[in-house]
Amino acid sequence: MRKSGRPTMVDVAADAGVSLKTVSRVVNGQPHVDPALAARVTASAEKLGFHRNALAASLRSGSRDTLGFVSADLTNTFYMTIAAAASAVAVGRGMQLIIASSEEDAATERTLTLDLCQRRVGGLIVVPTAADHTYLQAEVQRGTPVVFLDRPARGIQADELLLDNRGGARAALAELLAAGHRRIAVLLDKPDIFTMVERRAGVEEAFAAAGLTVDERVVVADMHTPQAAREAMTRLLASAEPPTAVFCANNRSTIGALEAIVAADADIALSGFDDFELSRLVPRRIRIVDYDAGELGRRAAELLLQRMVDPDGVEPTTVLLPTRLVDRGREVRPRG
Amino acid sequence: MRKSGRPTMVDVAADAGVSLKTVSRVVNGQPHVDPALAARVTASAEKLGFHRNALAASLRSGSRDTLGFVSADLTNTFYMTIAAAASAVAVGRGMQLIIASSEEDAATERTLTLDLCQRRVGGLIVVPTAADHTYLQAEVQRGTPVVFLDRPARGIQADELLLDNRGGARAALAELLAAGHRRIAVLLDKPDIFTMVERRAGVEEAFAAAGLTVDERVVVADMHTPQAAREAMTRLLASAEPPTAVFCANNRSTIGALEAIVAADADIALSGFDDFELSRLVPRRIRIVDYDAGELGRRAAELLLQRMVDPDGVEPTTVLLPTRLVDRGREVRPRG
Repeated sequence: MRKSGRPTMVDVAADAGVSLKTVSRVVNGQPHVDPALAARVTASAEKLGFHRNALAASLRSGSRDTLGFVSADLTNTFYMTIAAAASAVAVGRGMQLIIASSEEDAATERTLTLDLCQRRVGGLIVVPTAADHTYLQAEVQRGTPVVFLDRPARGIQADELLLDNRGGARAALAELLAAGHRRIAVLLDKPDIFTMVERRAGVEEAFAAAGLTVDERVVVADMHTPQAAREAMTRLLASAEPPTAVFCANNRSTIGALEAIVAADADIALSGFDDFELSRLVPRRIRIVDYDAGELGRRAAELLLQRMVDPDGVEPTTVLLPTRLVDRGREVRPRG
Repeated sequence: MRKSGRPTMVDVAADAGVSLKTVSRVVNGQPHVDPALAARVTASAEKLGFHRNALAASLRSGSRDTLGFVSADLTNTFYMTIAAAASAVAVGRGMQLIIASSEEDAATERTLTLDLCQRRVGGLIVVPTAADHTYLQAEVQRGTPVVFLDRPARGIQADELLLDNRGGARAALAELLAAGHRRIAVLLDKPDIFTMVERRAGVEEAFAAAGLTVDERVVVADMHTPQAAREAMTRLLASAEPPTAVFCANNRSTIGALEAIVAADADIALSGFDDFELSRLVPRRIRIVDYDAGELGRRAAELLLQRMVDPDGVEPTTVLLPTRLVDRGREVRPRG
């Protein structure tokens, strides 16, 4: 329905090839506008029949008071921690957050993202699954800021908020190798997800730094749920040469592996990427690659709000959040 | 922007005082329409200048291919399990789900819900926080089906999907009382939330059935986060007369209480409403009031889809999902 009403400042900006902010400045008679740009805005506004009242209509339609968040997995608490933090920032500014999830499907991501744009959100946080985001180019040029979170943008210039996936995995593996482990199982989610590519690279770098190579026989991919990881871990523990350590590339895998290890009462070192609720209470010591998930959500929302106010502010930026290794859980055995 | 374009079937339905389905039947020349209703639809369509092409425009705008879910707490996995199940139903029909959260604030619920309506969702699942939902009456009459989930609607006729909160809490308390416990702590979330009112009533019924009364000195309300519950439980355990058992009225409280109990190495029976991830691995035996959270989400989405296809089908219905008591966790002590 976007195009069915009267022309908006967004339409004028698109026609004139300038930012929404520039149109806003011209329309509102603010200073410091390049006269050549101002002339283009005025010409487009006249051509399209834009009237200043359309601004009020555009504001009334609620386009600018809602942020959209396209998650990748509704059941992973990682994304909900991010959503809650982003929502708190939005609410603090009198705005709100609406959430959708691609469930790791590129076509769904595209449909959802464009649908949210059509529903006139003021800005978008996207956890990308697709390999190509040129489909968002028109929307970004029309003045909708987009921040890519957890995974980078492909084929489009935009803000990115990433974790130090490679460094975190490398540190976890370096520790296991230093403790003498060689047969180290690695449980990965879908192997083409950016974070998995990076964490796997970190694993390989740690082995290489120790003059060793990864034992591919105990690397298992496509562990998308705790159930899948539990079954894979159960098989690994029951094999002729079970691993002496396991690195789980996300918290879904860690939870499943932990369930298998406890069920088998296995003696195996456990490391995993991502903290999770109740990790302190589980009956095995775990080394966790931890980071501030809330910070990801807060910074994503703050970047969006900044871009909404000042679209021409600075070039798109890539932020890499650090990770650290922490202890969780404790070794226990059944009572009595 | 809903009203700024050409009149839609929704507008015709509102003007004629009939359902969207009736308008659709008349417009599409389908059989079995009451001639008197058909005449009202035709009169309204002519009055408003409705043309049949507006139907195509309405479909293109995506109004019917998205369901909205207004949650109450983004960080509670209960709601995310529901959202994931509802989303799976929607995706199975080529639709999608968008999610927002009131974070237990009535004004936010109203803003978000009306915002989603304005963004033209085809139907809404609402976990209500507000004490009055007459604000949704116009939207429901305009043909947007609404299902209330986990808590009932107030001041509006609509489908409701509820848990047997009272029965579940009563069963958990009956067990503790039968085991001889008398000083039973009760940890409640905000006491005016419907589920808390009902679960508290279940607690009282169990005491009454045993010829006893609740010990109000160990009833603690407003435990909205695990942190709050942990602090309250720590205080209760350190008191002069600590409780011998505790009933936690939701999983946020159970997690916090569990953390306090393990930290204090306290000997106390633990029961809680709602299962949670990793409950099987925690180092204390817990009796959990369990139910099928996914079923809540699935049925909510299916009810909405049914209402969208057949708005005049049957009267609004209230479904009460059963609960059952299950064992989780196991007693353990630190190794070595």
